[in-house]
Amino acid sequence: MAEVGGAAIINAGTYRKITLLFNQIEEHERFLGNIIDCIGAQLLVFDRHLHVVVANRAYLEAHGLAEAEALGMTYSQVCQVKGEENGCPVDRVLYSGKMVRAVQERQEDDGVHWYERTASPILDTAGEVEYVIEIIHDITAERRLKAEQAERAKLAGVVELAGTVAHEINTPLFAALGTAQLLQEDLAAGGQEELQTIVRNLKSIAALTAKMTKMTGYR
Amino acid sequence: MAEVGGAAIINAGTYRKITLLFNQIEEHERFLGNIIDCIGAQLLVFDRHLHVVVANRAYLEAHGLAEAEALGMTYSQVCQVKGEENGCPVDRVLYSGKMVRAVQERQEDDGVHWYERTASPILDTAGEVEYVIEIIHDITAERRLKAEQAERAKLAGVVELAGTVAHEINTPLFAALGTAQLLQEDLAAGGQEELQTIVRNLKSIAALTAKMTKMTGYR
Repeated sequence: MAEVGGAAIINAGTYRKITLLFNQIEEHERFLGNIIDCIGAQLLVFDRHLHVVVANRAYLEAHGLAEAEALGMTYSQVCQVKGEENGCPVDRVLYSGKMVRAVQERQEDDGVHWYERTASPILDTAGEVEYVIEIIHDITAERRLKAEQAERAKLAGVVELAGTVAHEINTPLFAALGTAQLLQEDLAAGGQEELQTIVRNLKSIAALTAKMTKMTGYR
Repeated sequence: MAEVGGAAIINAGTYRKITLLFNQIEEHERFLGNIIDCIGAQLLVFDRHLHVVVANRAYLEAHGLAEAEALGMTYSQVCQVKGEENGCPVDRVLYSGKMVRAVQERQEDDGVHWYERTASPILDTAGEVEYVIEIIHDITAERRLKAEQAERAKLAGVVELAGTVAHEINTPLFAALGTAQLLQEDLAAGGQEELQTIVRNLKSIAALTAKMTKMTGYR
């Protein structure tokens, strides 16, 4: 009876320990779940058979899927790239055991989007790939920024050149104007009216080139 | 003795269970550690006393810290904003129990960077905030993209206007040119040389405005 009582006490103790461990596991899972849902990027985890075992909220929302629909899907269902297959890095992680990064283009309503897919292995204690984590970042802003910067530089070049050309116009303009004004003084009779027309029009041109140099910020 | 043997078997069984649970916890921790290091964003987790309990690789690298240095730091050490305090959202999550997002500006070597700090609560089973997760995203590209787009639109406007002005120059230019050419024919003597100078210079201007309209893509 004493033995049985002792065993009961031991059992009660181990029961408490097991409960604590279960609680700890539950807390870990809640913690993990919270973290993967908080990161803005899309996140998927695959097992070594390339089936989805984790899909975070950002992924589900971006693809209009319920969690139950995503879990168990295969990588070929999840990642589809037309033409070259470089945009789907998860398979390569399984073979190499190393992190692989790839960029995928996708046509969307507001134009082309670029997604960087980073796949990293989680190794088991034997050093074999047990899971592959894939993080999908929308890098469209970075790509568009480069394109915008190039376009802006091009336009800035055109504006500068326009300013230079407007400035260059002044040389023949003032040569013509000066000559016309001299001629007005020299010609005693005839052509005065025409010369006035010429001078008036040349002054209009001068006003327009002044506007242009100001507009283009030419100094 | 039978009782003792029974207890030993039970103990062996529970020992195996506990070991399995421990392994599961270890696997969870490895899994969690891998995931938080894989996300590109910086990630911090604070306990309810606002001490760092988790700092991922991206955070440590961005701030040149070792993990041991980061752990235990307080939020006021981790997040410093000059002037307004809106850039540090974690405190507010503790009080509100809700996700809070804030944007922080920081002067760096290559100009101003913007960081979006998203702080989310992890609640305990009683519904109290137990941890706060903070994700720090560099949103500089998004911000710069908007600035570049605005700047590009402004430059495109200047280019278009320059094209219009260059086109407008043509009206007084051809009026002056036509009048000068008529005058060349009408004037029997005197002023021919001057008129030639005027016409030559006006043609130079015509060449320059043609260059400008072509350059600005004016149609």
